[in-house]
Amino acid sequence: MRVLVTGAAGFLGSHMVDRLLGAGHQVAGFDNLSTGQRSFLEHAFRNPGFTFHQADLLDRERLTRVMEGAELVVHFAANADVRFGTQHPRKDLDQNTIATWNVLETMRDLGSRKIVFSSTGSIYGEPEIFPTPEICPFPVQTSLYGASKLAAESLIQAYCEAFGMQGYIFRFVSILGERYSHGHVFDFYKQLSQHPHRLHVLGDGHQKKSYLYVHDCLDAILIALQRADKKVNIFNLGTDEYCEVNDSIGWICAYLGLRPKITYAGGQRGWIGDSPFILLDCSRMRALGWKPRLSIRQAVLATIKYVSEHSAAANSKCEP
Amino acid sequence: MRVLVTGAAGFLGSHMVDRLLGAGHQVAGFDNLSTGQRSFLEHAFRNPGFTFHQADLLDRERLTRVMEGAELVVHFAANADVRFGTQHPRKDLDQNTIATWNVLETMRDLGSRKIVFSSTGSIYGEPEIFPTPEICPFPVQTSLYGASKLAAESLIQAYCEAFGMQGYIFRFVSILGERYSHGHVFDFYKQLSQHPHRLHVLGDGHQKKSYLYVHDCLDAILIALQRADKKVNIFNLGTDEYCEVNDSIGWICAYLGLRPKITYAGGQRGWIGDSPFILLDCSRMRALGWKPRLSIRQAVLATIKYVSEHSAAANSKCEP
Repeated sequence: MRVLVTGAAGFLGSHMVDRLLGAGHQVAGFDNLSTGQRSFLEHAFRNPGFTFHQADLLDRERLTRVMEGAELVVHFAANADVRFGTQHPRKDLDQNTIATWNVLETMRDLGSRKIVFSSTGSIYGEPEIFPTPEICPFPVQTSLYGASKLAAESLIQAYCEAFGMQGYIFRFVSILGERYSHGHVFDFYKQLSQHPHRLHVLGDGHQKKSYLYVHDCLDAILIALQRADKKVNIFNLGTDEYCEVNDSIGWICAYLGLRPKITYAGGQRGWIGDSPFILLDCSRMRALGWKPRLSIRQAVLATIKYVSEHSAAANSKCEP
Repeated sequence: MRVLVTGAAGFLGSHMVDRLLGAGHQVAGFDNLSTGQRSFLEHAFRNPGFTFHQADLLDRERLTRVMEGAELVVHFAANADVRFGTQHPRKDLDQNTIATWNVLETMRDLGSRKIVFSSTGSIYGEPEIFPTPEICPFPVQTSLYGASKLAAESLIQAYCEAFGMQGYIFRFVSILGERYSHGHVFDFYKQLSQHPHRLHVLGDGHQKKSYLYVHDCLDAILIALQRADKKVNIFNLGTDEYCEVNDSIGWICAYLGLRPKITYAGGQRGWIGDSPFILLDCSRMRALGWKPRLSIRQAVLATIKYVSEHSAAANSKCEP
């Protein structure tokens, strides 16, 4: 099968490229390299089934040329940054909402009918039900990131209804693992590598968060593609547990052999739009026979191992 | 108070302008006249508190000049067409989603903090709960129009959280009354004025629809502005009843003294994205002391009276 992967040089995208190539598919990777890293594709570049296209999704003409013949579009390109949304609200609109519209219109032009989309648990805002199911009460958006992802989801749903497409929408918790390049493990590692004896934490440290290991996430997506066949297929993806930010700090510090003095900014939320409790009900995805192999603790440890071993690379490029 | 009304020359917008001017406010009307009608503002033009600005919301510079000093932004401008969304998907994105983003960014620039937004019951897609409450299970979008309005709602919600704004979001059923300019009453009247003895109906005629009289709608908005004070205030607006398309046809034909032969296109839905059953739970709005004064039948009759008396004007401009 010929597959287009947008955001192909990103954390999740590059792993997806590897998995698809490993399964024998032809893969066209599309990425503007604004946050993606060419080095993540070093395996892929050795595979004759892979082509890479450095371009922006706002360039419809280029996108059309690259998408030609794709039976499946895996749309992972995004401004994946929740925390700094308030500093550049246009970025979420452009890179998440308008870019997704471009992908959908190009699919319509070319007759490409199947799309996988990386949405987010952030679209649940601050839910009142835990674990939060896909059909929880209609939420109110609390972040520009969540709003832009819900806008993109909604476009995909409407295109599926209007133009006979088929959509696979995955609402993730935060993803951890190899090639991880931004988020709390990265931030804490960076602080501790600069000053090993102190750590400053946003919020009060009691924020309850969920994480999922990247290969568990990809397993779920590939299983859903095989076993779900509705017009619009929506799945939460996470583990059945959560941890406090303080738990995560404990695992990271133990791994690094550090006992820093910890200070807290205070408050229930780390930043505007931060959700103090994220725990998704993933029973819909589990009903397809999937379950995550790594616990949150194991995923955090895999991540701190990766980040510390790749610290030079990590420090050289501060992703938003 | 100084108020900016976008879509000021539209059906709902022009009535809002009249009501605000009547209450002694200074009103700046903004409209690109793509579907709005200057004639709807004839009362307003006689009021020294009114200024009109023919421009598009995609023109940020112009919008900034006009919004200056507005304490309240009533954002009604939209591509208000559900039915033909599949023929021009960019229109919904531009005029509903991106235009709303422009309004919000301009408000942020100018420090304007309160926004009223005309959303739609279409964002509930095809709900499973009737009457449908604001907190119904997270819906799947079935129309490009609904998707674009949900995207706009989501942006407003996120801006309220991020930048200290206050949002009033109203999810309407179809609005009827004087200055009505597109929708089923208009379509049926147009057909019957061309050939009084036959009427062709999209769907099977059993679609269950809800309608609200325009002045009942405006009453609700003005009451909510006075009595609701959350960061994000979301209200369904409709009556507690519904009618079948066939009921509406009966009232229209009785009013016109016609007994046409009716043919049906068939199917539960009139067009792609049409919802076969719309009935909103408006108890949240009623709890503020509001109730609609006109029944659906009375609203349909007020509309057919208006449309038939203004048929020359109606026929001269075929709105989408």
